[in-house]
Amino acid sequence: MSDMARSITERIARVVGSAPVALHEPQFEGNERSYLRECIDSTFVSSVGKFVDRFEADLATFTGARHAVAVANGTAALHVAFRLAGVVGGDEVLIPALTFVATANAVTYAGATPHFIDSDERTLGACPVALREYLDSVAEVHSGQCVNRKTGRVIRVLAPMHTFGHPVDIEGMLSIAHDFRLALVEDAAESLGSTVGARHTGTFGLMGTSSFNGNKTITTGGGGAIFTNDETLGKRAKHLTTTAKLPHRWEYTHDEVGYNYRMPNLNAALGCAQLERLPQMLAAKRRLYERYAEAFADVPGTRIVAEPTGCRSNYWLQTLVLDPAVEHERDAVLAATNDAGYMTRPAWTLMHRLIPYAGCPAMNLSVAESLGRRIINIPSSSFLGC
Amino acid sequence: MSDMARSITERIARVVGSAPVALHEPQFEGNERSYLRECIDSTFVSSVGKFVDRFEADLATFTGARHAVAVANGTAALHVAFRLAGVVGGDEVLIPALTFVATANAVTYAGATPHFIDSDERTLGACPVALREYLDSVAEVHSGQCVNRKTGRVIRVLAPMHTFGHPVDIEGMLSIAHDFRLALVEDAAESLGSTVGARHTGTFGLMGTSSFNGNKTITTGGGGAIFTNDETLGKRAKHLTTTAKLPHRWEYTHDEVGYNYRMPNLNAALGCAQLERLPQMLAAKRRLYERYAEAFADVPGTRIVAEPTGCRSNYWLQTLVLDPAVEHERDAVLAATNDAGYMTRPAWTLMHRLIPYAGCPAMNLSVAESLGRRIINIPSSSFLGC
Repeated sequence: MSDMARSITERIARVVGSAPVALHEPQFEGNERSYLRECIDSTFVSSVGKFVDRFEADLATFTGARHAVAVANGTAALHVAFRLAGVVGGDEVLIPALTFVATANAVTYAGATPHFIDSDERTLGACPVALREYLDSVAEVHSGQCVNRKTGRVIRVLAPMHTFGHPVDIEGMLSIAHDFRLALVEDAAESLGSTVGARHTGTFGLMGTSSFNGNKTITTGGGGAIFTNDETLGKRAKHLTTTAKLPHRWEYTHDEVGYNYRMPNLNAALGCAQLERLPQMLAAKRRLYERYAEAFADVPGTRIVAEPTGCRSNYWLQTLVLDPAVEHERDAVLAATNDAGYMTRPAWTLMHRLIPYAGCPAMNLSVAESLGRRIINIPSSSFLGC
Repeated sequence: MSDMARSITERIARVVGSAPVALHEPQFEGNERSYLRECIDSTFVSSVGKFVDRFEADLATFTGARHAVAVANGTAALHVAFRLAGVVGGDEVLIPALTFVATANAVTYAGATPHFIDSDERTLGACPVALREYLDSVAEVHSGQCVNRKTGRVIRVLAPMHTFGHPVDIEGMLSIAHDFRLALVEDAAESLGSTVGARHTGTFGLMGTSSFNGNKTITTGGGGAIFTNDETLGKRAKHLTTTAKLPHRWEYTHDEVGYNYRMPNLNAALGCAQLERLPQMLAAKRRLYERYAEAFADVPGTRIVAEPTGCRSNYWLQTLVLDPAVEHERDAVLAATNDAGYMTRPAWTLMHRLIPYAGCPAMNLSVAESLGRRIINIPSSSFLGC
């Protein structure tokens, strides 16, 4: 084992205690059991029920979004957000190369082509400076639409992602979206609880989306949400995600091609209980970050990612970034930590490196490529910070 | 109120007791609460967990399918089944006009066009005699593919549905699928527990699909399954529904455009408990049918739909069919029964009458149209037969 691998494994152990320790596990210390029992006792476990309404209201209150629509998962949320942002077959959607595959898949489901953008070393999200320079060189605005000069396709949406919970430079994104006539859809799958100034991520763009998968800060088993401040879009999101059925006492009539994307009441019950304890979980995740930052302060060639200035991060996945000079150590660190029972993982394979997305348009991705070789996510469950 | 409306309301009340009575409610009398608690205690509520594996194994055992893959809902199951049956953009898929919109939507998600087929007065499912005659007139087989002479498109799949749980004439469907080189995908969303001879619906075709929505015979909140006897297709179904991620200790690599369609462990826990009690529920639903059949025996102009000869139906939704001579009474019956607190509903609006599917190819749909004017589903919860 290399010195660096040994040193990193030792620091993780010092912070989180004895192995095995998972990368991210949920914690059910509140009303989860009683709400699930209530759900079963009422027999309302499925597409209708008070927990769905309550979870949507609670999410809207927590995030400050005017409308929150609970759905089956974050991928479904993105798919519908793209469709409602006007994405049609043949369009392009700008998304980070450094993201989970769901972002790219949702673009594909909407009939469009992902167009990959580079990252910022500091936020791990899309870099506004490089993106603006790139768009200046390849895009032009015609009749209110942004056209990719190389492909001839309309670039309809800019969909930055708040990586591992750290807010992207949202002001930079809003400015680019404005100047290039792009709809801004925030992929806030990882950033429930993360804010820019006083405002919650996912509420700056036309729409935002969240995920409540089992590995997220709060979980509904499987689940997601669509956020918007636009009443019409909020209603459209609910309609599209509930098979586009028209309200009627007994008739089953649907006025467009909709989706069976609603969140079952059973899952929403879990979500309501989880959301009640989100403030405590966020505080614990912040403490965990502080402990990691302290423990790694004297490990040369490493940094623990901190929230960007002016932002609060939910610290969903704690992230160790190796310096370029020691990036060749990454796999040894992954092997040593996992061998020792501390689950760690690298960044996702970058989107343009995946077989299904290899041929898609992309800007220079040198920062994302470099980060992809240097990121290591380390154990991050909120209870580790308690 | 008409005599017929009064008479029908009175018969329903006689069978199911005092109002209000829903159309179909789940029953949680087994291990539902303890399995959900176990799920929470284990913290495995999401995409991985022992209940998902067990639910899939239990479903395979119950249906006799060699492979069962649990997914988010019946729509997702159909979407993936169509894709795995070889459906590509520009194809046509034969589906009943008399079905829930999910069947048509799933065809659309797969990039294909639904092509609507007529019903059989007896089974309420696709009519093999009329379908064969129709295909003889519009379809030809070229190089092993069925081509629609009118549209020039390949008809790739025949997807009959087992309406309200009553098995379609599956031998007739298999014979047509064979002769016209169509893949057979059974939409068995409504027919868990329904058999043809000794064999379970959903296991005759290349693939079959099920639904465990809250209104189904058993429920997982939201859920569905894909059945197949083909090992390669079973593995492909699991891969595609779990984001097409390649197994690796820490890397996140995906080799094709997959879906986030897995069933969460929380929902599978409910499914395991529900499935344990399915035999009792089926027996109760059969008793309820017998009571309705007896109660309606002396109501002229009505029949309660019975399972087809040689089949056992799960009697998911009990179905009253009015004679054509009294079909003008339907809305009065719906109003009278619902006003009295007995929830009833007509058949779904036929697919070719929906705005999004109005322009799709279709055979003569006179039987489906007629049934659509005469079907009334009446209260069907299994506990009503206890």
